Amino acid sequence: MKCRNQFLIWLNWPIGAFRLDAKSLAVFKGLAKGDVKVVRGERAFLRELPAATHAIVWEFKKEWFPRAKKLRVLATPGAGRELLPSDAEMPAGVVRVNGNFHGAIMSETVVAFLFAHARGLYRAYDYQKSGELWPRGAMSPFCSLVAGTKAVILGYGKIGHAIGAKLEALGVSVTGIRRANFGDLKPELKTADWLVVALPGDTGTDNLVDASVLRCMKRSAVLVNVGRGNAVDEVALAQALRARRLAGAYLDVFRKEPLTADAPLAADDIPGLVRFPHGSAFAPEYIPFFFRQMDEEGWLK
Amino acid sequence: MKCRNQFLIWLNWPIGAFRLDAKSLAVFKGLAKGDVKVVRGERAFLRELPAATHAIVWEFKKEWFPRAKKLRVLATPGAGRELLPSDAEMPAGVVRVNGNFHGAIMSETVVAFLFAHARGLYRAYDYQKSGELWPRGAMSPFCSLVAGTKAVILGYGKIGHAIGAKLEALGVSVTGIRRANFGDLKPELKTADWLVVALPGDTGTDNLVDASVLRCMKRSAVLVNVGRGNAVDEVALAQALRARRLAGAYLDVFRKEPLTADAPLAADDIPGLVRFPHGSAFAPEYIPFFFRQMDEEGWLK
Repeated sequence: MKCRNQFLIWLNWPIGAFRLDAKSLAVFKGLAKGDVKVVRGERAFLRELPAATHAIVWEFKKEWFPRAKKLRVLATPGAGRELLPSDAEMPAGVVRVNGNFHGAIMSETVVAFLFAHARGLYRAYDYQKSGELWPRGAMSPFCSLVAGTKAVILGYGKIGHAIGAKLEALGVSVTGIRRANFGDLKPELKTADWLVVALPGDTGTDNLVDASVLRCMKRSAVLVNVGRGNAVDEVALAQALRARRLAGAYLDVFRKEPLTADAPLAADDIPGLVRFPHGSAFAPEYIPFFFRQMDEEGWLK
Repeated sequence: MKCRNQFLIWLNWPIGAFRLDAKSLAVFKGLAKGDVKVVRGERAFLRELPAATHAIVWEFKKEWFPRAKKLRVLATPGAGRELLPSDAEMPAGVVRVNGNFHGAIMSETVVAFLFAHARGLYRAYDYQKSGELWPRGAMSPFCSLVAGTKAVILGYGKIGHAIGAKLEALGVSVTGIRRANFGDLKPELKTADWLVVALPGDTGTDNLVDASVLRCMKRSAVLVNVGRGNAVDEVALAQALRARRLAGAYLDVFRKEPLTADAPLAADDIPGLVRFPHGSAFAPEYIPFFFRQMDEEGWLK
């Protein structure tokens, strides 16, 4: 006989969007069959861990498994595999669950970047801030259509597909390139208007977008990175932007986070560089989306 | 017997996107059956007018009709009815054609505004410009999803429909309100996240979006105007933004254009105000789109 579920939730992240709030907890309680315990720190988590059948966390050290005698499901909203112990470290009988809902939010950030670029929003905002009231003739050459353009999406898993589907719905021609087919990248880039990187951060993707890849791109093309920073050679990217060999780079992620003043992309005079602080998946729906995913996958029964 | 078509094109506007260039002319010549003459000024236009069967222009004075003895089609890429003589002023046998392709471009500008707002792009850019390298916790509360929100589109003709279709494809619930149903506006606004104005500039829409309409909107709601400036009470809008009774206003059009320093929305300290210089339809495809429309409607045969 299966014992009654004991859900232990420890999602007390400093970033608001990634933290359990009252609304998210109400969603969880509406979906989960069993007892729900919420803790806010490591100490309380470890005290409650022995009774837990399900743990929902932002981190879990493999040293904690001996206490987790009843644990059946170890879940994290994050997409990153590094957040939980590796396959080899998982004890028998414990299932690991990662969030896979992020594409629904991240694809909106990619849409925002592409359309803000194509419609000249940043340039118009620069004019507004400088006190220029009517830069009409000046803006005209910097506005273009997204429909009819071509995007190459590098990393074509669940997140890449969500991005691709949204762009296709907006009239963009999409080529997704999976890791096994990285060789296809350069020929595809010659005609691409957008290179969207949605790769995970693990090994094998380091500096994949390097000087030679950037050189394949059109001068009018734009790089978007919502995956992980290690995939881009940041020095080569800064050089390409300074030399205007690339029209823009919209970066949500960086090799070293938090970004510091000595980073290649921290300078404030790199033309076309737009930075975002690793928040392409920020949304009040973040935690509720994960709970709904857990429910749909049957982990809350 | 119909005489051979004599197309006379005078599209020499100071704004690049609205001007005939070599590429657009090649598109026209590929579609049109007949002779094509291009002029760059009023004098040359009037000289060629007597031979023209089709005139494609940005302006046409009714005094010119007596010279236009062979004219059958008077066409302008603009959507505004004021660009050509009125119904009453048109001679028998001359058909007036206005561009109606603008929605394909303008809907992209609306998408850009909505997503830039929802994903916090302007706020993150302000941080970037101020030298703040990693405002991650600060950005989190200002990022939200567009999918699942509600838009009210005021003015639901061809342009309004194009905007609505694109937003629906992105998961937005859309309510379009035609002029005959303006009474429906206030009840709908109570639950709307976006009020998108896509009204033409003619009489009957003056100050339609006034203080009482703005008061119906949620504090988190946003106004977008890509129609004409007269529809918005600009003093009331500035007040609502200053009082934070509205989260933002993305305005492509203004009561008086070009915008001057004494206009209510020219101040540089109005929170949430983003201005664009009447360019929601800017795109290199602008003139080619009109030629394709003329072809599809049978005016180039």
